[in-house]
Amino acid sequence: MDLLIKGIVVTPQDVMDGYVGIKGSQIAYVGKERKKAERTIETPHLLIIPGLINTHTHLAMSLFRGLVDDLKLKDWLYNYIFPLEKKFINKNSVYWCSLLSMIELVKGGVTTFVDMYFFEEEVARACKDIGMRGFIGEGILDFPTPDAKNSKEALEKTEELSEKFKEDELIDVIVAPHSAYTVKRKTLERCKQLSLDKKMLFNIHVAETKDEIETVEEKTGKMPVEYLNDMHVLDEYTILAHCIHVTDKEIEVLKEKKSTVCCVPESNMKLASGVAPVWKMIKNGVNVTIGTDGSASNNDLDLLQEMDTVSKVQKLRTMDPTAMDAKNTLFLATANGGKALHKRIGKIKEGYIADLAIVDLDDVNLIPYFNPYSHLIYSASAYNVKMTIVNGKIIYEKGRINTVDEEEVKQKVREIASRVKG
Amino acid sequence: MDLLIKGIVVTPQDVMDGYVGIKGSQIAYVGKERKKAERTIETPHLLIIPGLINTHTHLAMSLFRGLVDDLKLKDWLYNYIFPLEKKFINKNSVYWCSLLSMIELVKGGVTTFVDMYFFEEEVARACKDIGMRGFIGEGILDFPTPDAKNSKEALEKTEELSEKFKEDELIDVIVAPHSAYTVKRKTLERCKQLSLDKKMLFNIHVAETKDEIETVEEKTGKMPVEYLNDMHVLDEYTILAHCIHVTDKEIEVLKEKKSTVCCVPESNMKLASGVAPVWKMIKNGVNVTIGTDGSASNNDLDLLQEMDTVSKVQKLRTMDPTAMDAKNTLFLATANGGKALHKRIGKIKEGYIADLAIVDLDDVNLIPYFNPYSHLIYSASAYNVKMTIVNGKIIYEKGRINTVDEEEVKQKVREIASRVKG
Repeated sequence: MDLLIKGIVVTPQDVMDGYVGIKGSQIAYVGKERKKAERTIETPHLLIIPGLINTHTHLAMSLFRGLVDDLKLKDWLYNYIFPLEKKFINKNSVYWCSLLSMIELVKGGVTTFVDMYFFEEEVARACKDIGMRGFIGEGILDFPTPDAKNSKEALEKTEELSEKFKEDELIDVIVAPHSAYTVKRKTLERCKQLSLDKKMLFNIHVAETKDEIETVEEKTGKMPVEYLNDMHVLDEYTILAHCIHVTDKEIEVLKEKKSTVCCVPESNMKLASGVAPVWKMIKNGVNVTIGTDGSASNNDLDLLQEMDTVSKVQKLRTMDPTAMDAKNTLFLATANGGKALHKRIGKIKEGYIADLAIVDLDDVNLIPYFNPYSHLIYSASAYNVKMTIVNGKIIYEKGRINTVDEEEVKQKVREIASRVKG
Repeated sequence: MDLLIKGIVVTPQDVMDGYVGIKGSQIAYVGKERKKAERTIETPHLLIIPGLINTHTHLAMSLFRGLVDDLKLKDWLYNYIFPLEKKFINKNSVYWCSLLSMIELVKGGVTTFVDMYFFEEEVARACKDIGMRGFIGEGILDFPTPDAKNSKEALEKTEELSEKFKEDELIDVIVAPHSAYTVKRKTLERCKQLSLDKKMLFNIHVAETKDEIETVEEKTGKMPVEYLNDMHVLDEYTILAHCIHVTDKEIEVLKEKKSTVCCVPESNMKLASGVAPVWKMIKNGVNVTIGTDGSASNNDLDLLQEMDTVSKVQKLRTMDPTAMDAKNTLFLATANGGKALHKRIGKIKEGYIADLAIVDLDDVNLIPYFNPYSHLIYSASAYNVKMTIVNGKIIYEKGRINTVDEEEVKQKVREIASRVKG
């Protein structure tokens, strides 16, 4: 065994006092026995959880964190974000700002992200540098983006990236058309075809705003999920971000097609887009995961806090405090994420990939300790994570990122941001 | 000058690059000049804000953090919390568990709390030991509590406490009847009389649940705020916690009487009690503050996060992303708190008390920096606070509480909790 860690192990299905052993990139042991290992960690009060999975990010948007807030989505997007992206989003800014976000994620126990943005080859490079797990999706739109003239170019880029990273242990390339209101049916069908041909996940924004619903209904006579289903986009390799405005019939379709819904509660609240029927979807057998969105609309990447929010806002939505209990909420960022991504991650189980986060129960906001699920969802924040392991490697420990120079990253992002400010 | 700190100063009305100088317990200087001082702090990237004010807590309830969750309020309160309190709440547990909560508050930049619970003399003792500012309210109920047979005893205790602390710089004693559904009109009137006689604040839970509204309406024919107004309880020395279910007419009354409403968003969501019309009250001129409630129903005391939540949930409630903007939200935990408590706190202004918190803009989740209000509300959490100053004294710095032994407190709370677990 390379590494053995003692603590309260949350699998997340179950809880056990014991040990987790790692050999290479795998979880090689989960049990009560103290096995021999190169390194053994037996600090008291540790909670060992699956590395968290953030299934909706636009990492490089940390560049715009706090620049424009408290605006209507359309105003924010068309009058600020799109023009800012045109001016400031390039290879250099995407690399450094994505890396900054990855540091934030890793410090908060996130080991895997699903990103959709531009210059995704730079996101992949940052991801390899920090050593975390990334699902990389070049944003595909029918109008010009910072790095593609049209959807054809973006699709070609996606294909190139998928070739480049096809043997990579940490990077998976995905097909990421922006939405049904910014991408034509023909393009969406091409995207799906590519995803089928190359066995890539298909990731799209769906039913985020009422405006979107109206636009899609007007254009197609259908609600967005129905429309996508109609063109055979939905299957178990599809991840739909948002899904705020979905009918019971659409929920039934999502379940039948085994598609995943990634809820994005904080960004949806901040932009007053609404609250997805997350608890209803879960109760109806839909696989639901969770994402932070970009930090321009959240404005942080704290997935532990995001779980707190989704639980509380679902209790509110249903007016039932027993809804969206802590244990079920933890699944969103762990096992359900692994299922959506078709990877052996999100559980602590022998044979699974060693992506782990370690929470320190000695922190004052986690004392006393009765129940790990409650603490993780309702009390813990990013800063309670003391160690993050990806693919068997410790990449964060005792406040320090082991793989990249945090100070350099901060400095670079500040330099880039100073031009935005000007 | 005893202490001079350089940084971005958020007053909170305005923002300035400059210095804050402290002499004794007072803010003696706010400006651009580098004054002479015993100690000067000029670390780069500091954001200097008023010490945060948490106007609704039950600090000792940290003992039950994570013990029972995901239940209906009545079930949670009557079948778990009340019996647990009867068994485990005593002088010893109140002292140590309140002190634990105070450490959590101080680490999150909170310098002042308003507490309502039992054995409040122990809360006051803990408060003096850690050196923070406390408004101490012995919970007054018409049925037996862990430390009073009836409301008469609790009232006497309140009066004794007010005598004991009447010259104290850090402690203010308040009159804290639990609610209009657990306390009779006669008792409420006695409470108000005491508060008038001794110039104490009057603090009560109001309109938290639909059940409460029904009970009060059935008993009195009035909505809770109307009922309290009817018995002349409402004035500028009254703080009403919750106020979820209030009519426009009641909002008008609250404004007219200059009473303060303390919103408690996270606890209200977790117990699915609802969302108070905070933005509407603010727009209508009501003084609104913010509180975390006890950590048994939240489950943490992170007031920066609480502000994030209230902003987002108000945007949702109004379906308007421009509502409850970051700057207005910051007032809840600063200037509005000072106004409610009739103390020169909550602003950074010469002649005000030196209660301050310092946020480190070098933390990865606060980079880049464009706007202090946005960062404080939408990005910052407790752990971004690097220093807390109360009454001119640094009580928290570089991860360390200067006044009490944090390890001892944790150990004591764990011991007490182990009995609860058993």
